[in-house]
Amino acid sequence: MRRTVPGVKDLPVECKILLDEGCDIVMAFGMPGKEPIDKQCAHEASLGIIQAQLMTNKHIIEVFVYEDEGKDEKDLLEICKNRAIKHARNAMHLIFKPESLRKRAASGARQGRRDVGGIGKTGGQ
Amino acid sequence: MRRTVPGVKDLPVECKILLDEGCDIVMAFGMPGKEPIDKQCAHEASLGIIQAQLMTNKHIIEVFVYEDEGKDEKDLLEICKNRAIKHARNAMHLIFKPESLRKRAASGARQGRRDVGGIGKTGGQ
Amino acid sequence: MRRTVPGVKDLPVECKILLDEGCDIVMAFGMPGKEPIDKQCAHEASLGIIQAQLMTNKHIIEVFVYEDEGKDEKDLLEICKNRAIKHARNAMHLIFKPESLRKRAASGARQGRRDVGGIGKTGGQ
Amino acid sequence: MRRTVPGVKDLPVECKILLDEGCDIVMAFGMPGKEPIDKQCAHEASLGIIQAQLMTNKHIIEVFVYEDEGKDEKDLLEICKNRAIKHARNAMHLIFKPESLRKRAASGARQGRRDVGGIGKTGGQ
Amino acid sequence: MRRTVPGVKDLPVECKILLDEGCDIVMAFGMPGKEPIDKQCAHEASLGIIQAQLMTNKHIIEVFVYEDEGKDEKDLLEICKNRAIKHARNAMHLIFKPESLRKRAASGARQGRRDVGGIGKTGGQ
Repeated sequence: MRRTVPGVKDLPVECKILLDEGCDIVMAFGMPGKEPIDKQCAHEASLGIIQAQLMTNKHIIEVFVYEDEGKDEKDLLEICKNRAIKHARNAMHLIFKPESLRKRAASGARQGRRDVGGIGKTGGQ
Repeated sequence: MRRTVPGVKDLPVECKILLDEGCDIVMAFGMPGKEPIDKQCAHEASLGIIQAQLMTNKHIIEVFVYEDEGKDEKDLLEICKNRAIKHARNAMHLIFKPESLRKRAASGARQGRRDVGGIGKTGGQ
Repeated sequence: MRRTVPGVKDLPVECKILLDEGCDIVMAFGMPGKEPIDKQCAHEASLGIIQAQLMTNKHIIEVFVYEDEGKDEKDLLEICKNRAIKHARNAMHLIFKPESLRKRAASGARQGRRDVGGIGKTGGQ
Repeated sequence: MRRTVPGVKDLPVECKILLDEGCDIVMAFGMPGKEPIDKQCAHEASLGIIQAQLMTNKHIIEVFVYEDEGKDEKDLLEICKNRAIKHARNAMHLIFKPESLRKRAASGARQGRRDVGGIGKTGGQ
Repeated sequence: MRRTVPGVKDLPVECKILLDEGCDIVMAFGMPGKEPIDKQCAHEASLGIIQAQLMTNKHIIEVFVYEDEGKDEKDLLEICKNRAIKHARNAMHLIFKPESLRKRAASGARQGRRDVGGIGKTGGQ
């Protein structure tokens, strides 16, 4: 199921509706703007998304990419794709094989960028 | 139905009352002042509005215009009108044809200003 | 009914108790100090007051005056009186004739200071 | 009844447990450190303490003293004692004679320091 | 029982699920990055963790270590170990002998670093 909402602050309730309708997990995609007010909106949305999870006992995977995260449009698009793919994989793992997440824990994996590596390890993925 | 409240912080509960009384969706209009304390009030109101949605499983479309968003009074009025119209359209879509919002997603549409365009597209609307 | 609490952070629950005991509306008066920690306390209290309203579906009119809002003690006292009176009127209107608030909406009315006027209007009250 | 928890962020749930077990009021003592992260923890704890009160309809008297509030260790100890005693008195009044708090309202009483006096009054206590 | 989640913002609901499934206490381990956005995520996660505790009347021991807390990787690892061990001990005490925590209260014990000592005492542990 897929739903589109006007802005990031409309995500929490839409996610909660989907979870209440029977979804096992929801991915919440959003691209907040680069102004301080946009970042505040994203912060408010994040708090609402956490609350929606606590009210439903189900996970919502938040996938936010900030407009000013990329060096240019091409880089931004790359981050979006990378983050969406990695988080989709996380969502799958949480539902179907949660034990597989354990292996990657603290490995310094980053969504949207090259991984940074764990403590005492060299390089990333 | 239309209700007026003294300030933005009175919006969350008034919206919730309307939703509990049977409204399918509510639009919350507010114009926070330009002082830091006004922005904090708007932030608190936004958090309450998100919470009210989670408690009712219905959408509240927040339409806030900051007093200092406009270059002058004429510009400010323009932003108010533009944002109100676009958000009213969003509210209609959410209730009557939510699938139509999908087409506009990530198109860089902005409420209150000329749209900024999506990644890899030129210009706005 | 009137209750007094030690500080602003004790207001949310006291207001909620009054609303649960049958009050239709509550006014919450507080004077936060001028230090950053005092402002944070007021912020926390405000969030609690909004939450209390959402839990009871009733309004709480928050009347906070910051110690550093006045130029001097006389000015501060003036702000307190002005804000208390205007908010008391707002509380009366919300309960007894909510439609009267509509006329004043977006007129730039300010509690505690001379009104600032609406967009495209000159002067205040 | 008296309970000890590892840090200030463990206070909200512990206070709520005590209130749910039948306590009429709880005092929450904490001494947050002087680093920004410590102050953020205290802020989070305060929000949780307010929420715990709203969930139980009972008061929690928060008594936090910041490590950097005192000029030196002796001064800090003085603040701790002064604040604890005044707040213990407040807790007693809230439960046994709430009307007595009214007399002290807006008198500029401060917990942990010499009182600052009310508007238009000279000196403190 | 042990569960792994993609990021710190996924911790609150996972902890709540574990508590609802019968766990008496949960430890939430996380290592937020060093960017401002990472610290905001940790703040949001902390608020959610406090809320999860209030909804379940059980403790969650939050064990966060910031990537920029250590002077170098070796120091960071040391902090992780030290903090995890001390908090595991706290968790055990909260469940099995809560009265033993009282003795350490206000002793200036710090998780992750050398203890700082209480007021009027010299040195740490």
